[in-house]
Amino acid sequence: MPVKKRKLAILGSTGSIGRQTLDVVRAYPDRFWVAALTAGQNLDLLTEQILEFKPAFISYTSRDKRLSVPVTCTFLQPEEIASLPEVDTVVVATAGISGLTPTLAAARAGKTIALANKETLVMAGDFVKQAVAEGNAELLPLDSEHSAIWQCLQGEATFPTRLILTASGGPFCHYTANELERVTPAQALKHPSWKMGRKITIDSATLINKGFEVIEAHHLFDMPFENIDILVHPECIIHSMVEFADGAIKAQLGCPDMRIPIQYALSYPERLNSPEFPHLNFKSVRNLTFEEPDVQAFPGLEIAIEAGKKGGTYPAVLAGADEVAVTLFLKGKIRFTDIPRLVEKTLSSHTATASPSLEEIIFAENWAQGKTAQLAAGAKTC
Amino acid sequence: MPVKKRKLAILGSTGSIGRQTLDVVRAYPDRFWVAALTAGQNLDLLTEQILEFKPAFISYTSRDKRLSVPVTCTFLQPEEIASLPEVDTVVVATAGISGLTPTLAAARAGKTIALANKETLVMAGDFVKQAVAEGNAELLPLDSEHSAIWQCLQGEATFPTRLILTASGGPFCHYTANELERVTPAQALKHPSWKMGRKITIDSATLINKGFEVIEAHHLFDMPFENIDILVHPECIIHSMVEFADGAIKAQLGCPDMRIPIQYALSYPERLNSPEFPHLNFKSVRNLTFEEPDVQAFPGLEIAIEAGKKGGTYPAVLAGADEVAVTLFLKGKIRFTDIPRLVEKTLSSHTATASPSLEEIIFAENWAQGKTAQLAAGAKTC
Repeated sequence: MPVKKRKLAILGSTGSIGRQTLDVVRAYPDRFWVAALTAGQNLDLLTEQILEFKPAFISYTSRDKRLSVPVTCTFLQPEEIASLPEVDTVVVATAGISGLTPTLAAARAGKTIALANKETLVMAGDFVKQAVAEGNAELLPLDSEHSAIWQCLQGEATFPTRLILTASGGPFCHYTANELERVTPAQALKHPSWKMGRKITIDSATLINKGFEVIEAHHLFDMPFENIDILVHPECIIHSMVEFADGAIKAQLGCPDMRIPIQYALSYPERLNSPEFPHLNFKSVRNLTFEEPDVQAFPGLEIAIEAGKKGGTYPAVLAGADEVAVTLFLKGKIRFTDIPRLVEKTLSSHTATASPSLEEIIFAENWAQGKTAQLAAGAKTC
Repeated sequence: MPVKKRKLAILGSTGSIGRQTLDVVRAYPDRFWVAALTAGQNLDLLTEQILEFKPAFISYTSRDKRLSVPVTCTFLQPEEIASLPEVDTVVVATAGISGLTPTLAAARAGKTIALANKETLVMAGDFVKQAVAEGNAELLPLDSEHSAIWQCLQGEATFPTRLILTASGGPFCHYTANELERVTPAQALKHPSWKMGRKITIDSATLINKGFEVIEAHHLFDMPFENIDILVHPECIIHSMVEFADGAIKAQLGCPDMRIPIQYALSYPERLNSPEFPHLNFKSVRNLTFEEPDVQAFPGLEIAIEAGKKGGTYPAVLAGADEVAVTLFLKGKIRFTDIPRLVEKTLSSHTATASPSLEEIIFAENWAQGKTAQLAAGAKTC
């Protein structure tokens, strides 16, 4: 019996997750159909993708550039694309706050949402969950850690007692605070295990990314912050774990390849045969190691988790401040260790809104971007 | 709402698995009721258990001894107990061939069978599965490895591609063949991680137990022998793993404590809260290691798997020969390295029956016991 094709909208198709999503689609043309693609500035790659996948709908944010060939696609805004009747699954693979509105639109329209955009849940987890519930939508994680937890929870009738998020420790695992003062953007962009976008690679190096993931896990799995642990596991083979009340732990393992969790979200509850993906060989994996994160050298982890625990507008401020701090670091304007310092300063200067509206959350993120830039400029002139 | 109590028959209640099953029952008197207990020779412990759990039915094989106090229980044969209407779950925790008839009776009577007795599936896997299907019974594994695989398969819609059974490597991991010639029963009985009965502890030391487990996994999960791997993992933290076609692997982990898989089988699909069980602390588990089994030093592993692959009466001969060889070793009559030699010799002397009846299987096991004893005696007099 032929399987009904999934009709995908891929938001952020020219980024790392977007391109890997299209790798999965390319391998299974009988299972997936690309209804829509959206991009930011990379119109050359978007043009190539349009020619290959022939989506009916497109979107891009660039105002200066144009597509290099004429196309017959209909141009729509991302939030319109996310709620099209021609789409059943929306892959949200954009970066930063831009994922929020389309995710909410997809949720209200009852779509299956495969979410790679961390900031959406970090900043507005409660709003997203409410929209998912109201729209009778489905929210599936794409992140390797959250996918691992989700896979481990399949078929379990009892709520877990603890989530154990693993962390590679990043390229500077075991660096001292002093050594970290001098690391360069080029060094920070060399992640030891995962191929990812630039922003998330820097966030992995500061461990702020792991803090984002804790907040995400809190929302995705309704787990109190106290029951989410972080375990540094430099081999990146165990992608995360779940503990149950009887002492049993389940883990999901595999080679670090984002196509595996992406494909699982798209083929769920089935798994597709993928001999071209790397399969783990225990003859070469002889040793899996674990250690506690070094919270002295990497204060960003606890700063991020604290912002998550406080809730309200704090997580939005965290996201906005980190966005600007990472950009400044990549431009060589601030040191690596200034990233958590600036984020913390911005959080400290924030006047909280306890039960914010969505507009207040977006405003707080915006405010944090400006404040962080201002704090960085002020520090420079000192 | 009060939960309906499970009505248990525990066959082999005075053995290691039987006692740990009663630990679980003791912790959850509102969930489990002991309808029946059966034992072999240890009537003192059986008496204690009867006084504590007050089963309505009992059985024991000892003809010389008597219960030390008068009891009002009804005495029945184990296969009668296994099919009583007063019983819904039969825990088969007896050793050797004695588990076979009661397991078949429980299967035909449509019971839930929690199976710890390896020999039953090893010798007569096809018959047990047929009886389970015909009786609309349920067969649940108690072994930590098979329970781990079963837990990892929960909620999976797609048949797995590979099972990875972990093995502690036993007390003589990394011993050379020469060193193994001289090991004593006392050394072999000291398993580094698991508290188990004497027979299975010796089988773990020879790795013949892991061969039994491969045959068991083949039957329990309908997995071809070629897709079952063995991985030596001395820390005994990962209890086994399952690989899927997309490259994802799931593992079940935890402290090596048999009460966890026993309780899971009894509470399935729920998990019960057990703070008294040891919970894994990754602060102390810093390193998980893996290696290939040393098939030169431990030939028993491949001998057992080969017997499983050949099928017919070979697995029964394997079980019978091993039973006698282990007994002879424990009595100091043969060396540790004679166990696989004797088993292999007995298998070589066997004239196979390709599609045996159950009677032929039982006959073959019996024949193998005699043949092994004879071969051992012959070797002695040489």
